[in-house]
Amino acid sequence: MKKIKVGIIGATGYAGVELVRLLALHPQAQIVALSSVSYEGKRISDVYPNLKDICDDVLENEDIIDRCDVIFTSLPHGLSEKFAGKCLDKGVKMIDLGADFRLDSAEEYAKWYNKQYEDEKLHTQSVYCIPELHRAAYKNQPIIGNPGCYPTSIALGLAPAIKYAVDNTVVIDSKSGVTGAGRGLADNTHYPNCNEAFSPYKVASHRHTPEIEQTLSKLAGKKVNVTFVPHLLPVNRGIVSTIYFNVKEAMTAKQLHEIYSEFYKREKFVRVLASGEVANLRNVKYSNYCDISVHYDEHTQRVVIVSTIDNMVKGAAGQAIQNMNIMFGLEEKCGLEYIPPAF
Amino acid sequence: MKKIKVGIIGATGYAGVELVRLLALHPQAQIVALSSVSYEGKRISDVYPNLKDICDDVLENEDIIDRCDVIFTSLPHGLSEKFAGKCLDKGVKMIDLGADFRLDSAEEYAKWYNKQYEDEKLHTQSVYCIPELHRAAYKNQPIIGNPGCYPTSIALGLAPAIKYAVDNTVVIDSKSGVTGAGRGLADNTHYPNCNEAFSPYKVASHRHTPEIEQTLSKLAGKKVNVTFVPHLLPVNRGIVSTIYFNVKEAMTAKQLHEIYSEFYKREKFVRVLASGEVANLRNVKYSNYCDISVHYDEHTQRVVIVSTIDNMVKGAAGQAIQNMNIMFGLEEKCGLEYIPPAF
Amino acid sequence: MKKIKVGIIGATGYAGVELVRLLALHPQAQIVALSSVSYEGKRISDVYPNLKDICDDVLENEDIIDRCDVIFTSLPHGLSEKFAGKCLDKGVKMIDLGADFRLDSAEEYAKWYNKQYEDEKLHTQSVYCIPELHRAAYKNQPIIGNPGCYPTSIALGLAPAIKYAVDNTVVIDSKSGVTGAGRGLADNTHYPNCNEAFSPYKVASHRHTPEIEQTLSKLAGKKVNVTFVPHLLPVNRGIVSTIYFNVKEAMTAKQLHEIYSEFYKREKFVRVLASGEVANLRNVKYSNYCDISVHYDEHTQRVVIVSTIDNMVKGAAGQAIQNMNIMFGLEEKCGLEYIPPAF
Amino acid sequence: MKKIKVGIIGATGYAGVELVRLLALHPQAQIVALSSVSYEGKRISDVYPNLKDICDDVLENEDIIDRCDVIFTSLPHGLSEKFAGKCLDKGVKMIDLGADFRLDSAEEYAKWYNKQYEDEKLHTQSVYCIPELHRAAYKNQPIIGNPGCYPTSIALGLAPAIKYAVDNTVVIDSKSGVTGAGRGLADNTHYPNCNEAFSPYKVASHRHTPEIEQTLSKLAGKKVNVTFVPHLLPVNRGIVSTIYFNVKEAMTAKQLHEIYSEFYKREKFVRVLASGEVANLRNVKYSNYCDISVHYDEHTQRVVIVSTIDNMVKGAAGQAIQNMNIMFGLEEKCGLEYIPPAF
Repeated sequence: MKKIKVGIIGATGYAGVELVRLLALHPQAQIVALSSVSYEGKRISDVYPNLKDICDDVLENEDIIDRCDVIFTSLPHGLSEKFAGKCLDKGVKMIDLGADFRLDSAEEYAKWYNKQYEDEKLHTQSVYCIPELHRAAYKNQPIIGNPGCYPTSIALGLAPAIKYAVDNTVVIDSKSGVTGAGRGLADNTHYPNCNEAFSPYKVASHRHTPEIEQTLSKLAGKKVNVTFVPHLLPVNRGIVSTIYFNVKEAMTAKQLHEIYSEFYKREKFVRVLASGEVANLRNVKYSNYCDISVHYDEHTQRVVIVSTIDNMVKGAAGQAIQNMNIMFGLEEKCGLEYIPPAF
Repeated sequence: MKKIKVGIIGATGYAGVELVRLLALHPQAQIVALSSVSYEGKRISDVYPNLKDICDDVLENEDIIDRCDVIFTSLPHGLSEKFAGKCLDKGVKMIDLGADFRLDSAEEYAKWYNKQYEDEKLHTQSVYCIPELHRAAYKNQPIIGNPGCYPTSIALGLAPAIKYAVDNTVVIDSKSGVTGAGRGLADNTHYPNCNEAFSPYKVASHRHTPEIEQTLSKLAGKKVNVTFVPHLLPVNRGIVSTIYFNVKEAMTAKQLHEIYSEFYKREKFVRVLASGEVANLRNVKYSNYCDISVHYDEHTQRVVIVSTIDNMVKGAAGQAIQNMNIMFGLEEKCGLEYIPPAF
Repeated sequence: MKKIKVGIIGATGYAGVELVRLLALHPQAQIVALSSVSYEGKRISDVYPNLKDICDDVLENEDIIDRCDVIFTSLPHGLSEKFAGKCLDKGVKMIDLGADFRLDSAEEYAKWYNKQYEDEKLHTQSVYCIPELHRAAYKNQPIIGNPGCYPTSIALGLAPAIKYAVDNTVVIDSKSGVTGAGRGLADNTHYPNCNEAFSPYKVASHRHTPEIEQTLSKLAGKKVNVTFVPHLLPVNRGIVSTIYFNVKEAMTAKQLHEIYSEFYKREKFVRVLASGEVANLRNVKYSNYCDISVHYDEHTQRVVIVSTIDNMVKGAAGQAIQNMNIMFGLEEKCGLEYIPPAF
Repeated sequence: MKKIKVGIIGATGYAGVELVRLLALHPQAQIVALSSVSYEGKRISDVYPNLKDICDDVLENEDIIDRCDVIFTSLPHGLSEKFAGKCLDKGVKMIDLGADFRLDSAEEYAKWYNKQYEDEKLHTQSVYCIPELHRAAYKNQPIIGNPGCYPTSIALGLAPAIKYAVDNTVVIDSKSGVTGAGRGLADNTHYPNCNEAFSPYKVASHRHTPEIEQTLSKLAGKKVNVTFVPHLLPVNRGIVSTIYFNVKEAMTAKQLHEIYSEFYKREKFVRVLASGEVANLRNVKYSNYCDISVHYDEHTQRVVIVSTIDNMVKGAAGQAIQNMNIMFGLEEKCGLEYIPPAF
């Protein structure tokens, strides 16, 4: 079989270079072009010396679409639409790792991102896809909006049970490794400032909130409001979302566990832990797995779900490749069977 | 003025050695005896070389009470009562950093600690004291039950507002540095297991839960139930408690902030951050401060409080010394004015 | 082709579980049995939950040799000989990740390990093998002594240049991540003791010293003495060896660089960095690569070599698999082409 | 006694804010003015929220000299001379934490810093001072050049023994916490780049080399050349220098230890560890101590010294205050008796 020809626009961002790491060994894909505005003309292994002798491709400008079957865009919000337009024109598929194809509502996008969609038609040809939840919604749309890292951990953690939740009781306390903040230098990611430190940020005002509520509302069949507070965790990788909600009727921990086990029983990349175990980001890092543990606090009739992923794999590049596999009719797990290391 | 003669039983545990660090420079106190079952006969600076040439006292067995004005006990639960009895007999004051004098209810103690109080009378002569909340309750009781680390961060974070909380909506997501687990070796505190890792533990079942609910219930004037989930944070020191609750009537962020500022306006060790700032454990570590930031999520009418302390100082040894200062009529801040370093 | 049937004795140690991670995806090998004294009867995924649903094999006792083509032993020193004897009897190959088949001299072994070889004949049928340096010495010996982690980084770093070194000027300052200390709990690997800490250990007395000197002496054709000082580095994985030695005649940095580039030009897993770059463990972790940078201090006529590997891969399990590939006539890189992640 | 009026120019750099932390509690000094080009008009506690309610002084421009008895300058090299001139004119003392008053030789300064001294006369009125080694050289010079962090750890580590060293055998392998790189954002101090990473930098070319050689040459009474390789260590604070040199005549470990113990027997801030112990930065952090352990490798006749300090205290702000105490006739330890915490 001929390999899928892949191009990456924004290859030197953190999600971009993680795509390179995973795609370079993908048995059915082949990187044919890498684009970077900041580093045009340099080899990617000059920017990321871990890639020396493995991928020494020269970074190009943005005119790479012609040579590709699929383009991954990994760009700050607001920059993907123009590439989407070009891809559509040329019959090239596109998977956007940014925020521009995640929200159904142009109003919500404008409100949270301070920017208007420039070409609303484009958005009618895209689909938002967490494979475990939305693969059935993929009907050969040429554009996939790859989900955000926090929303992935949260949607997978809540999908089986959101319908049991009492309205407006969902509280989500998420913690993300520092790669989530990206490659750009900033005071709060300067080593002495975030090592031996910990705090929330963007309390109840993070841009992933509408994406989370959109997914949960669809799953629940009604508007779901949540309080979402992300925290910056002094580790390189990984997200842990601790999710709280009250249930309408008391249940047993066993019932709750069965709901989750049943829901995910055919999923390779979602592991529902045995009762009594607690999900730890340690067990998923560098892999495409999502580990979920379920807990029930009887004295408050409140469910506690712990959902953990690697923010750069299942939360970004890995899930994007899983979506590429769907787009091209491959097995979803193809090229993604990395085993999380023990340490 | 004659200095207070201090003894520490359990001096080689983490809270014990932190007491040594702080008391060695306390202007009104003097360490006269250190006791340790495990290291009797060794110098404390053999066990903790940071103390070399600073405190080279030889560790003794437990017969040190006679020589002291006050004894700090820092022991696993169940071991403090016998020392309390001896202290009372000899007219020596005692501050217990363990769990044995925190709960009013013998039933709750038995339920959560799998152990009975052996001498209930002792508990009528003790008082539980977070100074900012309970100093008025100190009426020369000979025994002070020093609060737990999590409960301190949580009670200070909730005290100003608990009366506005809708029943059974309080969710507490706490994260603690690894010193909170103490000096004993364990798999989950082995470096490669907790570095680059993160997870909750004892989900909705941690022994600090009844202590938290006891304090909050008194503050609220009615039974308060909470869901409390602690997490192990890969840093040495510090606790961040992110606290969520719904309020009965909508308020503005400004109102909320004023409630907190007013409540703590005379407190040296509690700093209510300006609106828009977020509490970070970085700013309190190695100090006796508690930083609190207040946030309001309008779309869910939910308050979010972030409360952070150094678990070993305000959460253990520092607060114990603050309590000693109260016991002996000193200024509460005496010997505790350490400035948190910037990094 | 029929897959190689592999067994691991000592599967729950850190090197053991890293073997599992790498062998589970090896295209030409298949794990048929895992043995563990401590956890017999449990699944390995109970001990290492990262392996859940990936490798849930039940840990057996030590009678697994019969079913295997090759046994990896990963055991404390002194325990491998008995398995070597059994393997030889049954015609099963063995690769020992411990220290028992590394030293040629029984006297040196006895001196450094306080233990005698029990069966010296066994040692005549084994070969010590860093593939890049010793693959020519592999003549179908049934036992391979897999090199230690420090010695691997050092031998690869010195091999091209040891013949230019002035006698007795080699100083080796190595730094190892904490997994190098293994899975066993110890005070110095308790998180609060080694986080935000750093120090040498076993100064000029580490057991890897005779192994280092043995390899270097063979390369140099005369006895080489070194001063070797290892340090414990607060990271999970990786070794950086900074190696110093004077050269007999002044050379240029360019000459030095050419010597190294030439020496390793055909090696996949050794990357000699371009002049001016500095090797960083970040660029090799989770991979089988060894990165080497060469530096020359003109004013002291001293060479500085920086050599870095992942202690668990090239320093243990990865190199053992590379040796297995040699034993079975596979390409050395088979199953080892992991790309080091950027973060 | 009237307190010393202190001003800090460059108060928002890392050394500056560490000066604030230490001086705010100094019993004989009082901060009267803080200057910062970048943050003029802001409160220092806006920039460093750890100082909230403790030091809320407003940052001024640079015209603060008039009001002060002593000025600390903590600036990039090349910027201190102009303040030195002003201080001399106004009879104000100055302690420079930068590099401009460390080197005796204008040629060396020009060579290593690519800059000429603008006013050589100023340098005749300054003295370089590591108190334990140079306090006798302080003859009321109005300017003190405060030593660099690496040179402090190295000079203290080598002073007792440099005269026994064989020429050109001194190798210094130093490792510094990330605060040593300062407050400015840079790729190599971005958290995901230096966490779980380790490497040398500026191999045999760091600007501290001439300062190290200057001090050692004076101590030895002849030119001493060293190879100095610094490394970036993933911790916030602390330097460990591992120092190697051959000795002219064989000695015993006991003799070596006595040389060091005798040399430092009257020094409060230098602790020579007992034989067999190894210096660890953990035991000095947040304090003004320097811990030294001495080791002897008999088979190579080589000495190994391990010297550790907190780079921000003994390596910068603490030593500067120790120098201020000398300047003003106070006890050297005044305001510096912080006890290093155990964790």
